[in-house]
Amino acid sequence: MTRIEPRTLKGFRDLLPAQALWRARKVRVLEDVFLAHGYGPIETPALEYAEILKGKSGEESDKELFEFLDKGGRPVALRMDLTVPLARYVAEHQNVLAFPFRRYHVGSVWRGERPQKGRFREFLQCDADLVGAVGVAADAESVVTFLSAYEALDVGRVTIRLNDRRILTGLLERYGGSDATSRTVPVLRALDKREKLGEEAVRREMETAGLSASAVTELLRATTAKGDDEATLASLEADVGASEAGTAGIAGLRGVYDLVRAAGKDVARLRVDPTIARGLDYYTGIVFEASLEGAAGFGSVGSGGRYDDLAALYTTTRLPGVGCSVGLDRLLAAVEETGALPKDQAPSAVLVTHPEEPSRLAQVFALATALRSAAIATETYPEPRKHAAQMKYADRRAIPFALTVDADGSIHGKVLRDGTTFTAATARDAVEEIRRRLL
Amino acid sequence: MTRIEPRTLKGFRDLLPAQALWRARKVRVLEDVFLAHGYGPIETPALEYAEILKGKSGEESDKELFEFLDKGGRPVALRMDLTVPLARYVAEHQNVLAFPFRRYHVGSVWRGERPQKGRFREFLQCDADLVGAVGVAADAESVVTFLSAYEALDVGRVTIRLNDRRILTGLLERYGGSDATSRTVPVLRALDKREKLGEEAVRREMETAGLSASAVTELLRATTAKGDDEATLASLEADVGASEAGTAGIAGLRGVYDLVRAAGKDVARLRVDPTIARGLDYYTGIVFEASLEGAAGFGSVGSGGRYDDLAALYTTTRLPGVGCSVGLDRLLAAVEETGALPKDQAPSAVLVTHPEEPSRLAQVFALATALRSAAIATETYPEPRKHAAQMKYADRRAIPFALTVDADGSIHGKVLRDGTTFTAATARDAVEEIRRRLL
Repeated sequence: MTRIEPRTLKGFRDLLPAQALWRARKVRVLEDVFLAHGYGPIETPALEYAEILKGKSGEESDKELFEFLDKGGRPVALRMDLTVPLARYVAEHQNVLAFPFRRYHVGSVWRGERPQKGRFREFLQCDADLVGAVGVAADAESVVTFLSAYEALDVGRVTIRLNDRRILTGLLERYGGSDATSRTVPVLRALDKREKLGEEAVRREMETAGLSASAVTELLRATTAKGDDEATLASLEADVGASEAGTAGIAGLRGVYDLVRAAGKDVARLRVDPTIARGLDYYTGIVFEASLEGAAGFGSVGSGGRYDDLAALYTTTRLPGVGCSVGLDRLLAAVEETGALPKDQAPSAVLVTHPEEPSRLAQVFALATALRSAAIATETYPEPRKHAAQMKYADRRAIPFALTVDADGSIHGKVLRDGTTFTAATARDAVEEIRRRLL
Repeated sequence: MTRIEPRTLKGFRDLLPAQALWRARKVRVLEDVFLAHGYGPIETPALEYAEILKGKSGEESDKELFEFLDKGGRPVALRMDLTVPLARYVAEHQNVLAFPFRRYHVGSVWRGERPQKGRFREFLQCDADLVGAVGVAADAESVVTFLSAYEALDVGRVTIRLNDRRILTGLLERYGGSDATSRTVPVLRALDKREKLGEEAVRREMETAGLSASAVTELLRATTAKGDDEATLASLEADVGASEAGTAGIAGLRGVYDLVRAAGKDVARLRVDPTIARGLDYYTGIVFEASLEGAAGFGSVGSGGRYDDLAALYTTTRLPGVGCSVGLDRLLAAVEETGALPKDQAPSAVLVTHPEEPSRLAQVFALATALRSAAIATETYPEPRKHAAQMKYADRRAIPFALTVDADGSIHGKVLRDGTTFTAATARDAVEEIRRRLL
């Protein structure tokens, strides 16, 4: 028989048990945060009409699309984010949805980009959006949800850098020359890369986009963070001058700060950073991005922002909104890189071994049920193997306790970590003993 | 601007908020059952080399594969089940996995089959497999897990019909003629359709497969369930005679019954049905399938069985196992059909309205945090709208309580269901009041 080499596609990967257990637990934490803030789940297909997915994204993204003709000859593609499907979804179902519409969506997306460390062609997106609302309360709700997500995920200290596109508009109005707004997109893209590429590269890119050398100097000066956030905002306020957009942007950030503080969240985790622009064209107001302390090399581990008109491609209904996206796969990569990924391969707290006396199997099954009923995850060893082999298995899977039903029906327990043993006369006693030791 | 019609591909669908909330909750229930039984999660890519996915499935399945050349010219396809990826996974990672290896996997699969009621081209599979173990304890663990899943899902009364492929082998040895084993697959496929197509159609199909009329008569008689399960097993025992396979199959089913009973599970939910064969070629021992009472039209809502050599295509290591798969999307279709789908569109228990007095927004955010900290899902209304409009929104989203911060800072509560009102002086009092009313 010809064998096929078992392998995954370039840029794709399996999650091994410890990785998958970590991610599944974190997905649940994240869903709990979203649910607590009123975001409910939705689902959309992985595969959509290519024209729907391509509508909103630029040329650069189209190259990354996994696109093909299905057997009916339809041009179809795998979604490359959850935002375009959300736009299509709210346009299609607007008559049955209640607005303001909050939804979360945890799902895979696919991008044929060059694989890099911690970046894959298939990855999980975890998005929460509030569609059909404008204003500072909506923006602040999104930032509160985003910040609460990282608090609950418990993956280390996160800094959330905040900006408002309108401030950048204000600065361009002031310093960019008469036709500056036509150059907004390339200029913002350049600015967004300031930390990564350095000032000189950004300067060249802005000049290529058509800004004068003095305009670039002013922009770079104005977008340099000052001592603290209040100083940065005061300086920006002076720079945007009378610009309506700029003034609104600054007032927006101040309002968000106040409400995040009112919500009892740690505003020390926030930082105003006037260089944050986010690459996506659809952002129009607040923008934010999270980075993990001590893992700066991983870049952003989540982001979000406000858009004015989400579903313009699919409906005449104007749907402004604000949303955030947590980069769980980036966090997983960071946790693995720092060696902080827990080694647990199994969810089980207890292994009930296969009894030497086969007639005791019924007791093994009864004991396993008793443990599970007490919310203690339990597996039974499914085959008659030597006791030592079963213990070695428990050890490899990092299962903390093993219970064995002896020939006389008594239950013998072992703590795998230190080899301590104990006995229990009944299943009930065994459950109590394990429960006590798990506390 | 040209607009694009918002629509999904034929056979694909969105889940609306109430559907998605139901499914997300049930996925969690299911994962909890799997985890409680020692199954941990894994993840595999949605997209794999086509040769890997096509290896195991017959021609019929290949037509259903979403297959294409990626931008690197590689023949790739979307997975059509989670079993073939599991086989590839255990073969590829066998050196780092601990066997017996238990894993669950909840993920979408894609099949380009003709869309039917309750069947889609993309659907969720929820599988739990125990790989690298043989014997009755392993089989019984799988049936216990499967039965516990339906108990926990709380979707109505489920019947699990059980059989063992070895019993069918025994019957074929006895009645099928000298070369009966070469006809096993078409004969079992015919038998499996007995309930659906009726006896005459099955008879014709078996005769076409090469069985004599008298052999078909004997087979149909032998595979007719008797009064109760013990009677059915006794009758099968007489029919399989000295067949080693048949005898082992009957002993296996008896052993599974005993252990499921020992585990305290309701064996009244089990039924021996000698016609159950399951279409898939890889089953070799116990096979089972679940149906929902009062929704027989939806057919199977889950299934499972034992296989001898899961990963034979990818490795010389022999990996027998047993697994089950819960058909959550079929259950969703059944629940919708019977009108039992809850109307909740939102996870929120409380809407905190937008205050008339904007300076009270900080208090609104503090109140929302207090509620969330008490595990009460809460959303804030994000815009200054008329109170009546905000109440209408709460009503449409079926949010049970609304809280409003008045101009004097006191909190005014409303029970949406009956219009009852209450007041609270502080956030703490409001939380207590809601908590009391939620009990």
